Amino acid sequence: MKKIAVLGYGTVGSGVVEVLETNKEAVAKKAGDEIEVKYVLDLKDFPGTPIEHKVVHDINIILDDPEIVVVVEVMGGVEPAYTFTKNALLKGKSVITSNKALVAAKGAELLEVARERNLNFLFEASVGGGIPIIRPLNSSLTADKVNEITGILNGTTNFILTKMASEGSDFASVLSEAQALGYAERDPSADVEGYDACRKIAILSSIAFGKNVNYENIYTEGITKITDKDFMYAKAMNKSIKLLASSKDDNGKVYAIVAPMMISPEHPLYNVNGVVNGINVNGNMLGDVMFIGAGAGKLPTASAVVTDVIDAIKHDGKNVACFWSKEELKLSDIQESVKRFFVRIADSVEKSSVEAVFGKVNVIEIMKGEYAFVTEPMSEAKYSECASKLDGIITRIRMDR
Amino acid sequence: MKKIAVLGYGTVGSGVVEVLETNKEAVAKKAGDEIEVKYVLDLKDFPGTPIEHKVVHDINIILDDPEIVVVVEVMGGVEPAYTFTKNALLKGKSVITSNKALVAAKGAELLEVARERNLNFLFEASVGGGIPIIRPLNSSLTADKVNEITGILNGTTNFILTKMASEGSDFASVLSEAQALGYAERDPSADVEGYDACRKIAILSSIAFGKNVNYENIYTEGITKITDKDFMYAKAMNKSIKLLASSKDDNGKVYAIVAPMMISPEHPLYNVNGVVNGINVNGNMLGDVMFIGAGAGKLPTASAVVTDVIDAIKHDGKNVACFWSKEELKLSDIQESVKRFFVRIADSVEKSSVEAVFGKVNVIEIMKGEYAFVTEPMSEAKYSECASKLDGIITRIRMDR
Repeated sequence: MKKIAVLGYGTVGSGVVEVLETNKEAVAKKAGDEIEVKYVLDLKDFPGTPIEHKVVHDINIILDDPEIVVVVEVMGGVEPAYTFTKNALLKGKSVITSNKALVAAKGAELLEVARERNLNFLFEASVGGGIPIIRPLNSSLTADKVNEITGILNGTTNFILTKMASEGSDFASVLSEAQALGYAERDPSADVEGYDACRKIAILSSIAFGKNVNYENIYTEGITKITDKDFMYAKAMNKSIKLLASSKDDNGKVYAIVAPMMISPEHPLYNVNGVVNGINVNGNMLGDVMFIGAGAGKLPTASAVVTDVIDAIKHDGKNVACFWSKEELKLSDIQESVKRFFVRIADSVEKSSVEAVFGKVNVIEIMKGEYAFVTEPMSEAKYSECASKLDGIITRIRMDR
Repeated sequence: MKKIAVLGYGTVGSGVVEVLETNKEAVAKKAGDEIEVKYVLDLKDFPGTPIEHKVVHDINIILDDPEIVVVVEVMGGVEPAYTFTKNALLKGKSVITSNKALVAAKGAELLEVARERNLNFLFEASVGGGIPIIRPLNSSLTADKVNEITGILNGTTNFILTKMASEGSDFASVLSEAQALGYAERDPSADVEGYDACRKIAILSSIAFGKNVNYENIYTEGITKITDKDFMYAKAMNKSIKLLASSKDDNGKVYAIVAPMMISPEHPLYNVNGVVNGINVNGNMLGDVMFIGAGAGKLPTASAVVTDVIDAIKHDGKNVACFWSKEELKLSDIQESVKRFFVRIADSVEKSSVEAVFGKVNVIEIMKGEYAFVTEPMSEAKYSECASKLDGIITRIRMDR
């Protein structure tokens, strides 16, 4: 019998208890031993629930109990999660977390602390919910050099964009609907401004490229400016608009970005719709490999956490390799990265003026008062320079393959 | 420096040498040591190539060399691959294979031989080419009970069906095209009759359900009877026809089948087109998780092989768990499994006669001389019984969700 503690009895924490209970036998078989939740740390008491007698309010009870081999941190936020996690590792316990904020901010350090002590700090659930992506990056794609990781890493925004595409609705009304359905928070900024996806792509990039990517250095643009009119153009062009989180190694220069992008049906992520997440990894030998599934949700996320618990128990006394070093990966200036741009402009601007600045462009005319065009591939800096010469640009959306 | 031997210098074997060479540094970092191909076993000599001096024709040179820690078997076929693999394990060497015929026929036994000796027998490349699926099943989906695995596991047939769907072509002409492009063998029966997919779903099912699934007991139907007319109906019904390899645990009864199925846009595999493979795993906690990528091809397959080589070297002296026991999984009779059926019938048969036999059906009329209908869900046995009462049935295609 292996004893574990769960820090935080919210959605994921209660899901972890449920997965361990529902799949008790299967989990014991995979772990090689039964797993028991001995403590649940929470501010509340949960009287009358099955975990009533496991609740503690003092982290030290857990840290000081030598029976506890694995601590599951599912509280969220950097503090006190960071202090609890680090202290658990220092006390010789492996730590599993679903906490992307913690992993993005402190992953490299906590991995090192675990490595030095032959413990494990595992975080499969921190990106893509139930989708196996961290472990495949660490142990399945080892023969490849990763050229690119691009993901739809936030289910809330993908739900919103999918609805806008299929129903022609505007952003605000779909956001309200998402909030009513529980897919979006009352304060939706972490999702709709791209901050959540930014932390997740920082984590994936750090593993794929082996060096620490500081999420604060990733150019991040949300979906709040995407309108129903943008989707009318997308539809007319047989394209879709997705919030992509992407990092690419372009001959040693790594560019990372989170932004809404217009993509074609040939794009691997084109058909990833609704609250689903999808992650495409391009390797120099493998080509494209894609992982799709529930990017959030109580049980899928808890399943990923329990997978890590099993792994930590199977690898008791042995650190499972994760090639994410503390050395900083210096991201290249996104201004140098090259792509095509979709641009909407008032029809008071002559097409000849546009072409005088941007060169030859494809023009799309589907509504009154404006038209749109698609540029040739150009750097972000060059685009900004060109755009500054024209009055009347309504919006621009980057294009991916 | 770890020394390995490659048995067979065909497409995959030469790919393995290429991956190890191209990604030498990255592979050494992941494996914790450099990897050198010391021997290549082949009937030919390959004079003037970089492996010229590594070629041997006698397996015993490899088996008797204590420097060789890993043997890569990429010859294909059950013999002599089986004898070579077993002898290598008996000599204390881990074995990596891409050989689905070998794994489907002898996997359980070879896994046991490896387990007893703290060696590894790994076969990521045997299913789905470069797609990570064996390792995720073994180490990422451990917290779940698998309800269902359904895959598009054969790129050749998926290429053919995709072409038939998009171009309205008939089977024979697309097959010729696939042969000309090198996507189909001159004798295409292993692909088009479903035998290849059958072995692959047997392997996946054995791992997912933990017991040995004998591929010979899996009901297997190929795509040779699918016609351009079937695709006209599919198009009219907004469906697609895919060769699905599937096993489902229906309350303890496991059904396995390989057959062309008509599927809806909501099906996870609907958008897996061309030579690509896709595998959807449904877990009791995770829901659907999907893996998509190149199901074949020199470098993707070789990448998966090298991934296993790295794993074997990292786990020297320690068996990596694979929950595929020798105990036989008794598949339930497919005649009991329930689904809807799409049926084409000559229009000499009155609709009232059809409904007298099948009950209420949806009728689709799009061409002269015949019409089609979709049944309510019924068992295969019941379908056969009903169909036997009607003359004039042209074809029937199973439907999946």
